[in-house]
Amino acid sequence: MTTMRRIFRTPAGYVVDADGVYRTLEGDLFGEWHAGAEVPAPTTLLAPVMPSKIVCIGLNYKDHAAEQGKPLPAEPLLFLKPSSAIIAPGEAIVLPAGVGRVDYESEVAVVIGRRATKVSEADALSYVFGLTCMNDVTARDLQKKDGRYTRAKGFDTFAPLGPCIATGLSTDDLAVSGLLNGEVRQQSSTRELIFPVATLIAYISRIMTLLPGDIVSTGTPAGIGPLQAGDEIVVRVQGIGELRNPVRSDS
Amino acid sequence: MTTMRRIFRTPAGYVVDADGVYRTLEGDLFGEWHAGAEVPAPTTLLAPVMPSKIVCIGLNYKDHAAEQGKPLPAEPLLFLKPSSAIIAPGEAIVLPAGVGRVDYESEVAVVIGRRATKVSEADALSYVFGLTCMNDVTARDLQKKDGRYTRAKGFDTFAPLGPCIATGLSTDDLAVSGLLNGEVRQQSSTRELIFPVATLIAYISRIMTLLPGDIVSTGTPAGIGPLQAGDEIVVRVQGIGELRNPVRSDS
Repeated sequence: MTTMRRIFRTPAGYVVDADGVYRTLEGDLFGEWHAGAEVPAPTTLLAPVMPSKIVCIGLNYKDHAAEQGKPLPAEPLLFLKPSSAIIAPGEAIVLPAGVGRVDYESEVAVVIGRRATKVSEADALSYVFGLTCMNDVTARDLQKKDGRYTRAKGFDTFAPLGPCIATGLSTDDLAVSGLLNGEVRQQSSTRELIFPVATLIAYISRIMTLLPGDIVSTGTPAGIGPLQAGDEIVVRVQGIGELRNPVRSDS
Repeated sequence: MTTMRRIFRTPAGYVVDADGVYRTLEGDLFGEWHAGAEVPAPTTLLAPVMPSKIVCIGLNYKDHAAEQGKPLPAEPLLFLKPSSAIIAPGEAIVLPAGVGRVDYESEVAVVIGRRATKVSEADALSYVFGLTCMNDVTARDLQKKDGRYTRAKGFDTFAPLGPCIATGLSTDDLAVSGLLNGEVRQQSSTRELIFPVATLIAYISRIMTLLPGDIVSTGTPAGIGPLQAGDEIVVRVQGIGELRNPVRSDS
């Protein structure tokens, strides 16, 4: 990874936070760019990227596998979320009618920086552009009923993403937490990952080519729980910030 | 749907075949366009679209459910293929090393024409832009081992798509077949679909918003079977044409 920066996407384009000074990002996010004119701190944020795919990992924290009553996986358990599920910081997670329990899942998500096909674990981190937060919202009853993840994890609004892309962070030991209505419900560290980021990228890239902007979400720790209309759920990751989303019923 | 046309994507842009005369497509494929100058019949084809997602349906022909020893599903069984798996007509399907049996699955694929959220079955067909062929290539042993579809169906080259988008066809009774090295192995009709196209679009759009260019692949009939290096596999759909791909080993 490169220098530590936080990069926000706003309706007017990307903005870079370097030491508390916000500047426009001029050029190509995944190519050559430089910081431009100073601007105010952004207020309205968009999801920081629109990926060609979101690759998620199931059961990748030991404590979460235990709470789900599942054995530790021998290989990373992959699934895809559709990009149509992405929402921005502040946008509402919509609980679909008639699907039963819907859970938050706080996750550290990797933003891929360059095309990765069959990369080695030793090289894998050089394909990381930065990190963001993702809430892998899940219709738990449907997940159990279907035995598959596509529907349960694919509803519109089920992939809050943001608030920014943080570059230059190590994923060896980042604090990750989930706060429901201000109360800490999930609290862990990326050092608890069963398959660390380099292993995930190497593994996925042997199956499917990862493209710039693609998301690899690394799994959620213990403490998942249901969302209700009127809740506010926050995914907080050290060095990245807070991804905050209200929850409402489908109307 | 609109008038019957076949629309090809070439390295130089889209080309429209109207009654055997090929003309450039001027404008926006999913918006306003008109036929331009006459051009020769295209030789090199690209996959006809690059979708934001590929939504596939499992076990959607009665005979295929029977050959897989599965009961008929009560609801459409959805899964996603990553767009990184797409290849063009003529490009090689690459058999990954060490994954065991890899099968062809000949399918009729719907190309969505406009944004579809919670559409009714009665309106669903008005969201169809046209049809193409897809080969839902599947690592069968991995599919059985994983119990999930993401890895088994997500390898690079596992989504041959094309040769064109055909507009103006009804999906009530289209002949669909799969030919391995010139020999017919799959032969059915879309009248055998358990969940017809309008039902699928309405169902999916209640979960995830479908965007212009998105693919809904409708499932495969009986007769699936393994691919070997050196094979040629053809998906043929009435009114669309032939999607022809060679097969090779990973090297």
